[in-house]
Amino acid sequence: MDERRPGWSLEAPFYTSPEFFARDVEAIFASTWIFVGTVAEVPEPGDYVTIDVGTYSVIIIRDDDDAIRAHHNVCRHRGTRLLNDLSGSVGNIVCSYHQWTYTPGGELISAGVQAPGFDPACFSLRPVNVRIIAGLIFICLGPPPDDIAEVADVIAPYIAPHDIAGAKVAAQVDLIEDSNWKLVMENNRECYHCEAGHPELTCTFFPTYGYAADEIPARLQPAYQRFLDAERRLHDNCDRNGVPYALVEDLSGRPTGFRIERAALDGKGESYTMDGSAASAKLLGDLDTFTLGRASLHIQPNMWFHAMGDHIVTFSLVPLAADRTLVRTTWLVDAEAVEGVDYDLENLTTVWMKTNEQDATFCERGQLGVSSPAYLPGPYAPTEAHLDEFCTWYIERLTAHRERMDGR
Amino acid sequence: MDERRPGWSLEAPFYTSPEFFARDVEAIFASTWIFVGTVAEVPEPGDYVTIDVGTYSVIIIRDDDDAIRAHHNVCRHRGTRLLNDLSGSVGNIVCSYHQWTYTPGGELISAGVQAPGFDPACFSLRPVNVRIIAGLIFICLGPPPDDIAEVADVIAPYIAPHDIAGAKVAAQVDLIEDSNWKLVMENNRECYHCEAGHPELTCTFFPTYGYAADEIPARLQPAYQRFLDAERRLHDNCDRNGVPYALVEDLSGRPTGFRIERAALDGKGESYTMDGSAASAKLLGDLDTFTLGRASLHIQPNMWFHAMGDHIVTFSLVPLAADRTLVRTTWLVDAEAVEGVDYDLENLTTVWMKTNEQDATFCERGQLGVSSPAYLPGPYAPTEAHLDEFCTWYIERLTAHRERMDGR
Amino acid sequence: MDERRPGWSLEAPFYTSPEFFARDVEAIFASTWIFVGTVAEVPEPGDYVTIDVGTYSVIIIRDDDDAIRAHHNVCRHRGTRLLNDLSGSVGNIVCSYHQWTYTPGGELISAGVQAPGFDPACFSLRPVNVRIIAGLIFICLGPPPDDIAEVADVIAPYIAPHDIAGAKVAAQVDLIEDSNWKLVMENNRECYHCEAGHPELTCTFFPTYGYAADEIPARLQPAYQRFLDAERRLHDNCDRNGVPYALVEDLSGRPTGFRIERAALDGKGESYTMDGSAASAKLLGDLDTFTLGRASLHIQPNMWFHAMGDHIVTFSLVPLAADRTLVRTTWLVDAEAVEGVDYDLENLTTVWMKTNEQDATFCERGQLGVSSPAYLPGPYAPTEAHLDEFCTWYIERLTAHRERMDGR
Repeated sequence: MDERRPGWSLEAPFYTSPEFFARDVEAIFASTWIFVGTVAEVPEPGDYVTIDVGTYSVIIIRDDDDAIRAHHNVCRHRGTRLLNDLSGSVGNIVCSYHQWTYTPGGELISAGVQAPGFDPACFSLRPVNVRIIAGLIFICLGPPPDDIAEVADVIAPYIAPHDIAGAKVAAQVDLIEDSNWKLVMENNRECYHCEAGHPELTCTFFPTYGYAADEIPARLQPAYQRFLDAERRLHDNCDRNGVPYALVEDLSGRPTGFRIERAALDGKGESYTMDGSAASAKLLGDLDTFTLGRASLHIQPNMWFHAMGDHIVTFSLVPLAADRTLVRTTWLVDAEAVEGVDYDLENLTTVWMKTNEQDATFCERGQLGVSSPAYLPGPYAPTEAHLDEFCTWYIERLTAHRERMDGR
Repeated sequence: MDERRPGWSLEAPFYTSPEFFARDVEAIFASTWIFVGTVAEVPEPGDYVTIDVGTYSVIIIRDDDDAIRAHHNVCRHRGTRLLNDLSGSVGNIVCSYHQWTYTPGGELISAGVQAPGFDPACFSLRPVNVRIIAGLIFICLGPPPDDIAEVADVIAPYIAPHDIAGAKVAAQVDLIEDSNWKLVMENNRECYHCEAGHPELTCTFFPTYGYAADEIPARLQPAYQRFLDAERRLHDNCDRNGVPYALVEDLSGRPTGFRIERAALDGKGESYTMDGSAASAKLLGDLDTFTLGRASLHIQPNMWFHAMGDHIVTFSLVPLAADRTLVRTTWLVDAEAVEGVDYDLENLTTVWMKTNEQDATFCERGQLGVSSPAYLPGPYAPTEAHLDEFCTWYIERLTAHRERMDGR
Repeated sequence: MDERRPGWSLEAPFYTSPEFFARDVEAIFASTWIFVGTVAEVPEPGDYVTIDVGTYSVIIIRDDDDAIRAHHNVCRHRGTRLLNDLSGSVGNIVCSYHQWTYTPGGELISAGVQAPGFDPACFSLRPVNVRIIAGLIFICLGPPPDDIAEVADVIAPYIAPHDIAGAKVAAQVDLIEDSNWKLVMENNRECYHCEAGHPELTCTFFPTYGYAADEIPARLQPAYQRFLDAERRLHDNCDRNGVPYALVEDLSGRPTGFRIERAALDGKGESYTMDGSAASAKLLGDLDTFTLGRASLHIQPNMWFHAMGDHIVTFSLVPLAADRTLVRTTWLVDAEAVEGVDYDLENLTTVWMKTNEQDATFCERGQLGVSSPAYLPGPYAPTEAHLDEFCTWYIERLTAHRERMDGR
């Protein structure tokens, strides 16, 4: 941990050891803000989703006052898991075992016959910190880092115009990858592998992606011109819609490392589809054009996200074991959009379904490789600078956790 | 272990830690008498059953002199498992690998060509303590607690009239629950969850079950009168048949914690069926009436049992891992009863098949819940007093085991 | 380890403990020469096989100069596993992730855009020691024991006439046994279990197998006469073909413990088939007769092998976990032999397919048995002398490894 070589991938135990994994759950996933879904997944009071992180299980539920609350999914009687579905809707939260009953706010309101002196107020559900940013739901299982307010101020203007509260879930897919969560994040943080590895995704990437302006080869000059035109059009559309597009990158040196930008798409330029045209006929929020490129957000440790004019796609990952990670992908469209009329599910989901499967293969081969005693850390390429930042941030978080533990 | 809070559920590691589980196997399952089946399962000489406890495997076999013996299921040559089926019948016990041959009594009688000086008498099967109580078979893998004799004296009169030796196995079902064995036992030790959780089981429970006599609400007075009538009838029938019915409860403070009683059933009052009528047309033993309620026996750590006039149902559990437990349920009817004529299998087994499945779900949700780092021990309700006794007994056994180890 | 009782099977942890298993991988499988296949599996430049040993993965590839090379199957960039099939053919070795490209010799020849100062010469594939003996491929993951040269001198004359380079793979089957690798080796090192356990294999064994000459019972004298005749015929044929047949046994006291001999087969005397007649119509190499018995080779820790006049069958085992072992069986016939014309696959493979399945059952019962806390080491019979030698060798290797570690 103290001997990490900057610019190089991590030593094997960080990816393979169950002990290191248990530390990751505590030092990273229980100590930073993690993304768990959007308000579009719990539109009405009583609607809930559950999320498991390591052996934690958390209920995220919309309360009767429309606020979103989070509780540990553990009955205060004998510890039974309360809600056993990934999502649903309830009046109160009732334990199936002995019918202990909690309000959506977590208050115990019924517990059968108890001994004299039993005080229900001592047995509320244990709360989990929750924070909504422009419709994105974050929780923190431990003491919450306070830099989230600052991050919220920066990113909300990019996302708010896409009006997540006015959207609905069109599709949600869980994929389990036999890989450490950090390999999954590293995979997402570079596009060095995209050209050969992601034929569908790169349909809407400009061929000059990754080149510096003064390095564009002659054969790509026409494509570069197309890119410059698209960027100009994008900026005009953004300015008219009051949507920011500047890159803000702050990946290390803080608990809530993040990066956001808005970039033009190639082809029709509207959406992450095979030809770049919008997948849903209904514009999100009050946007006046589909040609808004992609607002791409990445927050460490577990999310990435793209918002287009017609739809949003969110990604969250959950560590299951040193060599297993859940990747949840959710597609949102305008709440008024009708499947089969305004959007076709396969068209909407193809690019990221394929891309996720391709990435799963890369990550699984990565896990197998770093598990060999012959693995040695290797150098990150210049296009992999975000990985180095990610590793820096990761070691910072482990160090901060160790200091908290020592200070106890 | 030394800091257990009486009246509250155990701390999480007792339910989740593999190290604690390994200790449970040694301190509880290899150090107390455990229930493994009935003599009805091995009616003839050479009949055997095998039972696996942790990584132990034990053969229980009826010897040629009709005595029942138990041996470790391990060849003394190179350690091969000898009998590989759950039950069967053999002349001698022959290892499939090199044909080392043992009598049902465990003596090595053939071992191929051996070096001079090889003494077969040194290679008998390693014996396991065995004890029969009114047809119930108990084994002890370690030094056997001697209070079993006292327990036998108390419980045998309740069970002997049901004549297990004159019964046969009508059905046997193994269910694997993803739960710690203690959650399975705790589940069985309270009926706080029965009303909402077990619609089939409670068909033959009086609605006043769990109420003190002076707490019966007015609306239940007719049911209470029905209960009092049924108890009076039960006691008459018991007295006439020479069957005891008093409650004896001695769940902690001794190695072989147990509880026995006989109680009336509601409805037809004869058996654990949906309407309470007998499931088998043949009375057990020399009983003269079906209306004998249920003789209910519980012995720690791993059995519960109900004997009615027409049939018996036994339950044994075997710990497989910190979060996996086998529950074996066996239904016995009179040996002369004919399936399809005297009893219908589905009618005989429905109540407990359903009840077991419901309990498995509760136990599995319990295991998930206590695995969360957010779990805290909770208070047992007044109707859960047996759970507190069970936990007390459990901690006593762990303490006794630690003292034995320290004394080594 | 220091308290092993000669002549008795090993203590349980050697067969069951994950920690002991990890030590076996390092002290045995990464420190001795292990058999991984034959040159017939990689006939052309670019042909490769991959082999996984514990968490190691190794590429064995024929280079453009026809030499066979071995590399760790780990990309030097970020550790991704390079080749993901069991076998195949490539021009260069290209990582699927970012297209880092290596020659069959392991040199990095392409790595995309890298930072200034990046030196490809520092990122060759990490090499693995490789040694070919008469077409058998051995690798050593650690510093290679040098007694392999001496072993090669002894065994090559027995095998070379069967011309593995002129053979082809007719069939290859992987079987995973739920057993420790040492139980699999021990099983192979004695035929005490063959008579009852392997009806197909023993079709071509003389009934006097295992008897000393002066112990043959009267009823077996005709069979003994048949055996003496067959041996005389075998020796004539060997002498004429320049093939040695003497037994050489050197199982312990050296890193590369081995045993080789040539013995006559019963029945038709030509091959390991149900009636002993040749399974392939084409003679291997320049041999002039099918009646050459079997040249049987055993090399510790992981191979056994039989070469007949018409075909060769090789066995390699790979430890997967304390209780899981892969056994790979490969049948080779002359490269010119045509399936369906010169040989029938089922006839060729039946004897060892059945024998392997029978042995898997024995080994799995052995693993279950030694996992019981009631298991005690037992005495090897006189016919199990090779097991004792194997255990002696094994403890020698562990001791040598400990000394190397201490010397570090």
